[in-house]
Amino acid sequence: MPELNKSFMDQLRIYQDLINASLPGAFTGDDAAVDMTMEAALYSLMAGGKRIRPVLMFAVSDMLSVSYDEMIPFACAIEMIHTYSLIHDDLPCMDNDDTRRGMPTCHVKYPEPIALLAGDALLNRAYEIMFEACLDGNPSKVKAAAFLARMAGARGMIGGQTMDLLSEGKKIPNDLLLALHQKKTGCLLTAPVIIPVYLCTHCSDVSIIEQQLTEFAAHIGLAFQIKDDILDVTSTKEILGKSIGKDQADEKSTFVTLYGLSKAKELLENEIDGAQNVLLLLRDNGFDTRFLEDLNKYLLVRNK
Amino acid sequence: MPELNKSFMDQLRIYQDLINASLPGAFTGDDAAVDMTMEAALYSLMAGGKRIRPVLMFAVSDMLSVSYDEMIPFACAIEMIHTYSLIHDDLPCMDNDDTRRGMPTCHVKYPEPIALLAGDALLNRAYEIMFEACLDGNPSKVKAAAFLARMAGARGMIGGQTMDLLSEGKKIPNDLLLALHQKKTGCLLTAPVIIPVYLCTHCSDVSIIEQQLTEFAAHIGLAFQIKDDILDVTSTKEILGKSIGKDQADEKSTFVTLYGLSKAKELLENEIDGAQNVLLLLRDNGFDTRFLEDLNKYLLVRNK
Repeated sequence: MPELNKSFMDQLRIYQDLINASLPGAFTGDDAAVDMTMEAALYSLMAGGKRIRPVLMFAVSDMLSVSYDEMIPFACAIEMIHTYSLIHDDLPCMDNDDTRRGMPTCHVKYPEPIALLAGDALLNRAYEIMFEACLDGNPSKVKAAAFLARMAGARGMIGGQTMDLLSEGKKIPNDLLLALHQKKTGCLLTAPVIIPVYLCTHCSDVSIIEQQLTEFAAHIGLAFQIKDDILDVTSTKEILGKSIGKDQADEKSTFVTLYGLSKAKELLENEIDGAQNVLLLLRDNGFDTRFLEDLNKYLLVRNK
Repeated sequence: MPELNKSFMDQLRIYQDLINASLPGAFTGDDAAVDMTMEAALYSLMAGGKRIRPVLMFAVSDMLSVSYDEMIPFACAIEMIHTYSLIHDDLPCMDNDDTRRGMPTCHVKYPEPIALLAGDALLNRAYEIMFEACLDGNPSKVKAAAFLARMAGARGMIGGQTMDLLSEGKKIPNDLLLALHQKKTGCLLTAPVIIPVYLCTHCSDVSIIEQQLTEFAAHIGLAFQIKDDILDVTSTKEILGKSIGKDQADEKSTFVTLYGLSKAKELLENEIDGAQNVLLLLRDNGFDTRFLEDLNKYLLVRNK
């Protein structure tokens, strides 16, 4: 296992602190009154996620020398969209999960209809803060927001959730499993690496950078999912903070059920290598890719 | 009961035909592939609603001589947001309704998790088409979209849904019932009358028009809700196309349970009169308010 250096862990913490400090105010706005739905939304939003999507957005911004300031509403929006999708995924009619990140899921902590509305509220607010960020009329921001909406919607993440639901109890072909996760996990990891490119005013070779970062996101998206599938059978509920062995109980096709544990680990390393190779191309073009290289290794060694 | 003239009914049909023709393509986009979630979303979107919100938007646009062309994405977005809220409201964990507009509700026709995702997909797509409409960088459109997002979110419609949930089984004070419906129904009726004002490039006295139309929307919003409460006890399932007597069964405070049927009818007429008085002010300022006046009467006499 590769070692993670201290400067990476420090920088990771800086990015995580930035998004954690920004999120509550971005969600509640300037009005202090918080009703039960907003409280439930904040509960799930601040339940201590890894913040991989905002971290990716900040890291790519740093790599491209794009200022954070303009990025923060988008980083908050993407984390709100991610959180809404978890709340709805955990609901009894979906995965029926009672634990997430070591804490009761939203519908366990709050009444189920409030959890449903909390997800809806996060999704609405994500878009509202992006429109507010676009009030300066900058078409690049509008383009970035439209891209995120597409990645989150029926052609993106929701399309993947649909494939996931419809494949329950079936052994699906390997290529369908890839397509499923490209949408379900990949789309919402692609958005944060592409949005900084859209907002880069000084970047040349934008289309090449966009293509390389899209490829990078595809690799880490799959790596992320394969690792999740491996942890579902190798970790414990205490470490992972959520129910384990659920994939098998729900008769879901996963990289482990389709390929076996050993082959899944090999696939994971392939994806990590694929991501690293893209980063080397970017490094050759003069970009400082050190943080993203370490993040890539972190996805391999993480235990939750 | 006032008579509805033929030219009103013809114009109403023209507006309804316009939104009905625009909605499916606006939802599916240029990609022909439709998965089960998108099919479920289209099922509910095209289930024959009255299209009051788009009709209001087109009618106010006509009154202000603002072109429809720029309005259509916003009209589609608001109808998608309205439909998502109905799908989620009908779910077993919320109102648990099995019939809407004379047809099985989304989660009865499709698996429950698909209905949940169909609502999510409609909400995402509503925002996506508004961002696409804003790609020209027109800040007025961005302002209009941000306003709609606020009206739909936790400070608007979702805030009203939350108050509604939390007041079930309780006799709530009259002013709370007003505030609840101002948010739950009023906010999403305010957006379509205000958005054309934002998009009017030639309007003078914008703040006065905005104020008057906001007041108009508040009156018809309440009229709409009081009429719904009255129909819940006076209509039949066949005419209304949805379960009746549900409010009482769910122990919900309504204008009928709080005031009695006779007083509720009086309150309804008061709101209709209030809306009419605002329209007379607009008429005095030279606007052609005939359609909106007839629409106001239509809300009074409608039987579903």
